[in-house]
Amino acid sequence: MNTIGRIFRLTTWGESHGKAIGCVVDGCPSNLELNREDIQEELDRRRPGQSELTTQRQEEDQVEILSGVFEGKTLGTPISMLIWNKDVDSSKYLALKDTPRPGSADFTWKSKFGHVDWRGAGRASARETACRVAGGAIAKKLLRKFNIEVIAYTKEIAGITARENIDVSMMGIKDLIESNPVRCIDSEKAREMEEIILKAKKDGDSVGGIIEAVVLNVTPGIGEPVYNKLSADLAFAIMSIPSVKGVEIGTGFEITKMKGSLANDPFVLKDGKVKTLTNNSGGILGGISNGMPIVLRVAIKPTSSIGIRQKTVDLEKMKETSIKIEGRHDPCIVPRAVPVVEAMIALVLADHGIISGVIPRKL
Amino acid sequence: MNTIGRIFRLTTWGESHGKAIGCVVDGCPSNLELNREDIQEELDRRRPGQSELTTQRQEEDQVEILSGVFEGKTLGTPISMLIWNKDVDSSKYLALKDTPRPGSADFTWKSKFGHVDWRGAGRASARETACRVAGGAIAKKLLRKFNIEVIAYTKEIAGITARENIDVSMMGIKDLIESNPVRCIDSEKAREMEEIILKAKKDGDSVGGIIEAVVLNVTPGIGEPVYNKLSADLAFAIMSIPSVKGVEIGTGFEITKMKGSLANDPFVLKDGKVKTLTNNSGGILGGISNGMPIVLRVAIKPTSSIGIRQKTVDLEKMKETSIKIEGRHDPCIVPRAVPVVEAMIALVLADHGIISGVIPRKL
Amino acid sequence: MNTIGRIFRLTTWGESHGKAIGCVVDGCPSNLELNREDIQEELDRRRPGQSELTTQRQEEDQVEILSGVFEGKTLGTPISMLIWNKDVDSSKYLALKDTPRPGSADFTWKSKFGHVDWRGAGRASARETACRVAGGAIAKKLLRKFNIEVIAYTKEIAGITARENIDVSMMGIKDLIESNPVRCIDSEKAREMEEIILKAKKDGDSVGGIIEAVVLNVTPGIGEPVYNKLSADLAFAIMSIPSVKGVEIGTGFEITKMKGSLANDPFVLKDGKVKTLTNNSGGILGGISNGMPIVLRVAIKPTSSIGIRQKTVDLEKMKETSIKIEGRHDPCIVPRAVPVVEAMIALVLADHGIISGVIPRKL
Amino acid sequence: MNTIGRIFRLTTWGESHGKAIGCVVDGCPSNLELNREDIQEELDRRRPGQSELTTQRQEEDQVEILSGVFEGKTLGTPISMLIWNKDVDSSKYLALKDTPRPGSADFTWKSKFGHVDWRGAGRASARETACRVAGGAIAKKLLRKFNIEVIAYTKEIAGITARENIDVSMMGIKDLIESNPVRCIDSEKAREMEEIILKAKKDGDSVGGIIEAVVLNVTPGIGEPVYNKLSADLAFAIMSIPSVKGVEIGTGFEITKMKGSLANDPFVLKDGKVKTLTNNSGGILGGISNGMPIVLRVAIKPTSSIGIRQKTVDLEKMKETSIKIEGRHDPCIVPRAVPVVEAMIALVLADHGIISGVIPRKL
Repeated sequence: MNTIGRIFRLTTWGESHGKAIGCVVDGCPSNLELNREDIQEELDRRRPGQSELTTQRQEEDQVEILSGVFEGKTLGTPISMLIWNKDVDSSKYLALKDTPRPGSADFTWKSKFGHVDWRGAGRASARETACRVAGGAIAKKLLRKFNIEVIAYTKEIAGITARENIDVSMMGIKDLIESNPVRCIDSEKAREMEEIILKAKKDGDSVGGIIEAVVLNVTPGIGEPVYNKLSADLAFAIMSIPSVKGVEIGTGFEITKMKGSLANDPFVLKDGKVKTLTNNSGGILGGISNGMPIVLRVAIKPTSSIGIRQKTVDLEKMKETSIKIEGRHDPCIVPRAVPVVEAMIALVLADHGIISGVIPRKL
Repeated sequence: MNTIGRIFRLTTWGESHGKAIGCVVDGCPSNLELNREDIQEELDRRRPGQSELTTQRQEEDQVEILSGVFEGKTLGTPISMLIWNKDVDSSKYLALKDTPRPGSADFTWKSKFGHVDWRGAGRASARETACRVAGGAIAKKLLRKFNIEVIAYTKEIAGITARENIDVSMMGIKDLIESNPVRCIDSEKAREMEEIILKAKKDGDSVGGIIEAVVLNVTPGIGEPVYNKLSADLAFAIMSIPSVKGVEIGTGFEITKMKGSLANDPFVLKDGKVKTLTNNSGGILGGISNGMPIVLRVAIKPTSSIGIRQKTVDLEKMKETSIKIEGRHDPCIVPRAVPVVEAMIALVLADHGIISGVIPRKL
Repeated sequence: MNTIGRIFRLTTWGESHGKAIGCVVDGCPSNLELNREDIQEELDRRRPGQSELTTQRQEEDQVEILSGVFEGKTLGTPISMLIWNKDVDSSKYLALKDTPRPGSADFTWKSKFGHVDWRGAGRASARETACRVAGGAIAKKLLRKFNIEVIAYTKEIAGITARENIDVSMMGIKDLIESNPVRCIDSEKAREMEEIILKAKKDGDSVGGIIEAVVLNVTPGIGEPVYNKLSADLAFAIMSIPSVKGVEIGTGFEITKMKGSLANDPFVLKDGKVKTLTNNSGGILGGISNGMPIVLRVAIKPTSSIGIRQKTVDLEKMKETSIKIEGRHDPCIVPRAVPVVEAMIALVLADHGIISGVIPRKL
Repeated sequence: MNTIGRIFRLTTWGESHGKAIGCVVDGCPSNLELNREDIQEELDRRRPGQSELTTQRQEEDQVEILSGVFEGKTLGTPISMLIWNKDVDSSKYLALKDTPRPGSADFTWKSKFGHVDWRGAGRASARETACRVAGGAIAKKLLRKFNIEVIAYTKEIAGITARENIDVSMMGIKDLIESNPVRCIDSEKAREMEEIILKAKKDGDSVGGIIEAVVLNVTPGIGEPVYNKLSADLAFAIMSIPSVKGVEIGTGFEITKMKGSLANDPFVLKDGKVKTLTNNSGGILGGISNGMPIVLRVAIKPTSSIGIRQKTVDLEKMKETSIKIEGRHDPCIVPRAVPVVEAMIALVLADHGIISGVIPRKL
C-alpha cells in the first residue's frame, strides 16, 4: 500500500517529524549510471524554502544512497535512500491534536488507524512526496537512456492560465520553466501568478492550480490492456499525490464538448512513421502509447493548512469548535508539486517500459 | 493485466466477435445471496439496442453463471460468468483491417501485439465492458449488504449540463435516472440531450459527455495510504474504461480556482457524527473516506467510430489514405457507460471494503 | 488467490460437480501458434479413467478455447478455456455432508467459508488440476519455442524407487514414461508399482509416492532475488497442488548429510560454456538458474478418499462418528499428478522467462 | 521481488559490505506495542559471532527504528529499520571477483545482472536474512497478541537426529532450545552435533542439517484456496531463505510410504473442539489451517564457503582454475538459520491472518 509499481517499484516510508523519511526503489535495471547528485538535483526542486512562495521550513533534504549502487552504477538490487528530518518543530501541532484541520487528512487517518502521529501531519504530510521525487529521479535517469523526457510545469494558478502557443519540445524548455518561481511555462503569466500567491500568503489563505505534463519520445506499444492501461496507471499514480483532485489526458474534459469528427486524430505519415495530425488523445489510444507526446493535466486544490480561523470538531469532547493554524504555511503547493508530478509519471513509464519489454532488465 | 483488484478481483476475457466473452470474480465473500437476475438486470442496462440512441447491434447478452454459487449463495470461490456472442457481423471490418480507425485502439494494439483480431475491434472493443458490468453487479450486491449505494447518471452531453439542484439521495432517484434514455438525472435537460444525440446520429457523427457518480453511506476509514488511496484506485478503475479521458473527485478541476478558506470543508457534528458542512473533497480526504458521499465525474469522449470519411494510413502499404466506416454506430456511448462507471466504482469499493476489514470474508 | 503468476498468469475456476470448470491464461505473448489439440493432449494425460489404476469417473474433459486465439495464433489477450462437467454423480456425497472425510479439505473449507459445495469436494476437488494442466499446456508450448523442456515422471510409489541411472535427456524419454500406466521412468520398477497400487485398490486403501521433474535447456539468469527466487516460486507452485506435502530441489534433503566440500558443484567449462561437474544444486544457485538441468522432487500423500471405515466428527451434531466412503476411489493419484507437476513448473518458468526478459511479450 | 507478502509486507535492501542493510515492514496493524528491544532480541539470536560454532564476523547488528512507531505503538504506517554495516573486510573478496565460488550465487548473479557487488557476496549474502529476522520480529509480536507461537529448532545436523519424543508445547521450550549453541531441541544430541560442527570447522569444511518448526494455536480457516494455500506460501517463504533445498509439511516425504488408512488423521472431539488424533497433515488440510499445530521441516545445505581448495572457472579468462577461500567461514549455518525460519513463518502467518480477517487492521 506504500508501494507503487509492478516491476520497477517504489516503496516510501517515514513520518514528517519522525527521525527520517526514505524510500526503496526495487526493480531498476542493473548497469545504469547513477549518483547522489542525480537525485539531489530533483530534491532541490521540491524542497521547502526555495522561494518566498513556499513554506519556510528550512529542510536541506540531503539524500543518502545506502544500497543498490556500486562503482557508480546500479546493481539491479534495491536502492535504499534516506533523508534525515532536521528542521522539525512539533510544538504547534500539539494544540491541534484533537481538532482535525478542515481539508486535511487528520480526521480520516484518525478514523482509520486510531493511533496517529499528530506531529506535522505525520505520514499524511506532503513531506512524503520528497521520497517520490527521489524515486522518480532514478526513473527519469533510466528513461533518459531511452530518450524519453518528462516535462511538467504550472499551467494555471487560481484561474490565471498560461498561453497555449508555447512549444514544449523546444530546446531549453526546462531552464525556461525553472526560471520563474511558479515553474510556469509562460514567464509573462508567471508574474501574475506570483502576485496572486503572495497576496494569498499575506491573507493567510491559499490558492490552487493546474499542472500540465508532457512526455516526449515514447514509442508506440507501451501500456497494458485492459485494466493496466497506461492512462489508468498514470491516473492512479497522479491521483495518489496529496491535494490532487482531478486528472485528464489529452484534450480531457473539453473533448466531451467536441464532435467525434473533430475529436478523432487523423493518422498521417511523417518521416516514414505513423503519427496523428492533432493530439486530442494525448498520446494514448486504447490505453497504449501511440508515439505522440503524452499530455496530461492535474488539478491541485488550494493548500488546506491556512492561517484563517476555521470551524471544526473536537474529537475528544465531541463538540464543535474552531481552530487557527499557527506557523509557516505554504500558500500554494503547485510550484513544488511540479517535480512530484514528473516523478510519478516517470515511475509509471519506467515500470511500463520494463513490462512492455522496451526497457531491458540489464542495461 | 486483465485483472483488477487485490482481494475482490475481476478478470475479464473475450474478443468482440469471438465465441464468447466472460469474466471471473474472485474473492467475493461466501454466503452472499446471488442469482442470475442480479447480474442480468445490470447487463440489460448496458446492452446495445435498448433505445434508438445506441448502436443497433442486437445482443441479448444473456449471462450464465458457471461456478461460485451454490444453493443461491456464493461459495467464496471464483464466480465464472459467460456471455455467448451472437449478433456478430465481421464482414465490414475486413475492409478496415490495415487502416486504423482514427481515435480507436486499432493502431496501438497492432503496434503492441503484431497479431490482432480485427473483427469488431477484437478485445479492444467496448464490448469488454459487459464483463465489467457483470462483475460490478456482484460488487453492488455485496455493498448493498452494507448499505452502500453507487449511483451514476449523465451529467452533461455535448456541453448541455443537468441542473445542479437535484438531490441524489432522494427516494426513487434510480427510477428517475432510468426513466429517460440518456440516463440523465435531469429529465428536462434529458430531452435536449436526446435531440443532440439523434442529430449526431443522423449526421453520422458522435458526441461525448460527462457522467457523475455518487456513493452513499460509506463509513469513514476506507482507503489505503499512501499509494492505494481510495481516490487513486477509483481514478485507475475509471480511467481504464474505454473512451474515458478525465476523472475528477469532489469539486475537481473547479477547486483549483477557489481559495483554501472556501475550499476546505468545515467539520461539524450531525446526529452525533462528524460530517462536513460542504463536500468539496467529494467524500475523500487524504485518500480515505470521510463519511460524506463520494462524488466524482468522468469525461467521456465522443465515440470514435463514425460514419464520416476520415484520413488514416494504410499500414500494409505505408501510405496515407481515407476510410469511411460502414454499419451501425453508437452516436453517444455515455448513457450505456453509466452502468459501467457504477460497476468500476463498486468493484473498487468492494475491494477496499474487504481490505479495510469493513466487509468480512465470510458473511 | 485463484490466480498464479505475475505476468504470465493462470486463473482457475469451477466446482467439481458444478456446470463446468475452466481457466483464463493472461499474459501469454502474442503470435504463439496454439490450437485446441495442444491442450487436449495434455488433458488426456490427466483425465480420470485412463487406466485401471485410476478413478473410474468417465470424464472426457474436452476443452474449448473461447478467446485469445485467432487464426491459429495467440493474440496476447486472455485465453479462456472451458471444460463442461459431465459424468457427475453427487448422490453419494450427500451422506457425507456433515462428516468431514479424514485427510480431506472438507473440514477446513467448512471452517473458512461456512457455506460449501459438498458435491464431489466442490472446489477443493483435485478436479481443479485439470485447469492447471490446460494452462500449463500453453506454458509448455511457449517454453518449447525457447527449447525448454519440462519432463516429470514417477520416481517412487509406496517406497518402491526407480533406479537412478536413467538419463532423462535421452531421445524418446517421454514415450518411455508414457509407456507404463504408472508413468515411471523405470519400466521394470513400474510393474512392481502397478501391483502395489492394484493391491491397495482391492483393499479399498490408497498409496502415495514421489514425482521427480527435470527441466532441460534453461539459460542462466532466470529467477529473481531475493524472495521470488526461481526455487521459491517453484516450491510455491508445487506445494499448491492438492496432496503435495513436500518439495526438494537438487539433492534436497539428502544434501543435509553431505560435507560442503562434496555438496558444492565445481564449475567447469564445457563447449565454451560454464557448467557444473555435479548438479547437487538442481540447476538453481542463489535462486537463479545456472544453466544446468533443474531437478526437483515432489512428495504426494496417499489419496485421502478410501473405502475403509474411518473415524470422524459429525459437525451438525458435534459428536464423534465414523464413515465409509462409497464409490469410485483413486488408489494412487501419483500417475495422474505427473502432468500437473509439469504444468506448474511450466507456468512458473514461462512467467519467470518473461519477467527475466528471456521470453519477449510479442513473438 | 525484494518484497514478500500481500497486506503484511516485508521489503528488504542492502549489500553485505555496503553502508547499511535494512527493511520496511508495511501493513502492520496500528496500535501494536513495539519497541527496539522486541527486534534487537531476535537479531541477537541471528547475529554472527555468538558462539564458536559460527562465523567470527563481529557484527553487533544494532537495529534502529526510523518510522512507523510513535509513543511505543505502531501507527499502521511503514516501519523502516536500519542496521549499519560495521565489521567489513572486503579485501579477501577481490581475489575471487572473477572466479565464482562453487555452491554460491556468484555465477548466477553475474549472469543475471552483469554488474555485481563482489564484496562479501553483496546482496546475495546471507546477511540479508538479518532484515528478515527484524521484520519477522514484528510479525511474531503481532501473532503473540493472538496467542500464536512460532517455535523452530535444529532437528538434525549432518545426519545426527534429535529424538522424537520431546513435547514442543511444554513450558520453557524456548529456553531449552536456546540453552545449547546448536539450538537443538534435544540437549543430549546437541553435544554430538556441536562436535561434528567443530570438526568440520577444523577441517575448513562445512555441514548442513534440518530445522523443524511448529506453530501453536492457529485457529482453523487460515489460508487461501487454491494457489495461496498456507502450505504453498510457507514453502515459498522458506525456500527463499539462502541454502534451503527442501521443505516438507507434517509427515512430509515419509507420508509417501504410508497407506491412506494410516496417513489420514481421524477427526475427534477434544474439549468441544474438532481436532485430529494424529497430525500427519501438519496442521494444514487443503491448504487451510485445521487447528492442529503446524509442523514443517527445512533442509539446509552445508555452507558453500569453505576453506578447502575447489575447482572453478575464471569468467574473465574463460578458463578452468581453482580457488581457496580465505578468512572466517561459518562451518554450519543451521543454528543461526533457526530464527530466520521462525521469521519467515511468522511473516506468512501475519499476512494470512490479516487476509483471513482473523487479525484486524487496527488493534
